[in-house]
Amino acid sequence: MKHRIYVVGMGPGQENMMTQEAMQVLEASDVIIGYTVYLKLLGERFGCKELLSTPMRQERERCQMCFEKAREGKKVALICSGDAGIYGMASLMLEIGKLYDDCIIEVIPGITAASSGAAVLGAPLNHDFCVISLSDLLTPWERIKKRLIAAAEGDFAMAIYNPSSHKRADYLERACRILMEHGVEPERACGYVENIGRDDTKAVTLPMEELVHTPVNMFTTVFIGNSQTKIIDGKLVTPRGYHI
Amino acid sequence: MKHRIYVVGMGPGQENMMTQEAMQVLEASDVIIGYTVYLKLLGERFGCKELLSTPMRQERERCQMCFEKAREGKKVALICSGDAGIYGMASLMLEIGKLYDDCIIEVIPGITAASSGAAVLGAPLNHDFCVISLSDLLTPWERIKKRLIAAAEGDFAMAIYNPSSHKRADYLERACRILMEHGVEPERACGYVENIGRDDTKAVTLPMEELVHTPVNMFTTVFIGNSQTKIIDGKLVTPRGYHI
Ligand SMILES: C[S@@+](CC[C@H](N)C(=O)[O-])C[C@H]1O[C@@H](n2cnc3c(N)ncnc32)[C@H](O)[C@@H]1O
Ligand SMILES: C[S@@+](CC[C@H](N)C(=O)[O-])C[C@H]1O[C@@H](n2cnc3c(N)ncnc32)[C@H](O)[C@@H]1O
Repeated sequence: MKHRIYVVGMGPGQENMMTQEAMQVLEASDVIIGYTVYLKLLGERFGCKELLSTPMRQERERCQMCFEKAREGKKVALICSGDAGIYGMASLMLEIGKLYDDCIIEVIPGITAASSGAAVLGAPLNHDFCVISLSDLLTPWERIKKRLIAAAEGDFAMAIYNPSSHKRADYLERACRILMEHGVEPERACGYVENIGRDDTKAVTLPMEELVHTPVNMFTTVFIGNSQTKIIDGKLVTPRGYHI
Repeated sequence: MKHRIYVVGMGPGQENMMTQEAMQVLEASDVIIGYTVYLKLLGERFGCKELLSTPMRQERERCQMCFEKAREGKKVALICSGDAGIYGMASLMLEIGKLYDDCIIEVIPGITAASSGAAVLGAPLNHDFCVISLSDLLTPWERIKKRLIAAAEGDFAMAIYNPSSHKRADYLERACRILMEHGVEPERACGYVENIGRDDTKAVTLPMEELVHTPVNMFTTVFIGNSQTKIIDGKLVTPRGYHI
């Protein structure tokens, strides 16, 4: 019998935005591994379990810890914010999993920030869309730039993850300028949501010409409309094409 | 006091893949409106509530029904498969909502087929990706084609919704040919998942050169890898860029 390890998407934060499946998997596990922030949220409910963390950036070590704990016979869940397979740990676990052929990895999906943030703003992703991360820790900026250009040229709505960090305070501005150089008009309807699924959620709709000058933090997901997107009563809405 | 109407994403099918928030909203509602298929799934649990449907394609009428029921003082939930704001009813409700300024619309997100299907296949969307629908009922084919080309040129991973219907049996083939004309190699790692979250889920990984000849049905979501995507032990994996 192989050891089964679960990689679990927890949704944006609020416990009731987790799926029941995710909750059941955590309840059935002996060890829960993840970032300290998330473990803290879970601590109250799962204090009786072994809760383990590794420092930021030590993603490989965190994965190895999962396999080692599973080989000790423990039921292991690795938790990620949002969806486990969208800028989450699912792919790294599957890659490292090659070295542990006595283990099987199962991915439990969660509500990703694109979905949860869109719901707060209205319906900005209700037509074809792209999800793009501005983090160049693992991706060369040239590739990010190429994707921003393609997204603008394809007239996609967009959800932008990792729009900022201490070292990359101006990346959202750079991204906006690239989009505007490739057909996104200054009036384009945009928005952003900070701290989705937390007590202090902040949602803003604004045109591209303001977004480009707006500082956002790393707990923010940014939404760029397509050429049809409108702001209706403060909500960001990308129509599907019905004649109203 | 305004009437509050909820547009609820139900996830891919299985009840335990709904969020607890979605379940709470349905439990608190008097009237649940949606496609017959979904109402049937809910019938057992919510048989005591008023369950209403309109025929396929009558989306506007379904929205109007929500506002009228809300004005009768009923608590109304409109249900959608997957996420309510991804090819769901959220945008149409917000658009029609302009005519009903005594009503407020709240969107409750759900697990979209891109997330749930990706989890079954492994981690195909673990880097920047596009979501594209091949349905040309509301979108001219030329626009769909333009987006496929942009997605290929940007080297995005892709989740393709509505890959087929009775009238559009060859659309996936056409889409694959467009992608191949714009840089997607015949060996590109792809996959598809039929009936996600149901008893008869079927998941397949295959190269583009086979996908182009593969008939799929409308209950299928198709995944196209980016140039880095690999098949590892039968799983479709798009790396985030860690050096393993
Ligand atoms: C490494 S990615 C993780 C994404 C996550 N796996 C998901 O599916 O939502 C981190 C980025 O996701 C977005 N994000 C995740 N959770 C968020 C939240 N609660 N509120 C706003 N943005 C969030 C932000 O853009 C953040 O910089
Ligand atoms: C009109 S769209 C609705 C999408 C839905 N709102 C979502 O977020 O998943 C219908 C398409 O979604 C995909 N889809 C929805 N549910 C699915 C399921 N259970 N299994 C496979 N594909 C599904 C298929 O591509 C289907 O043609």
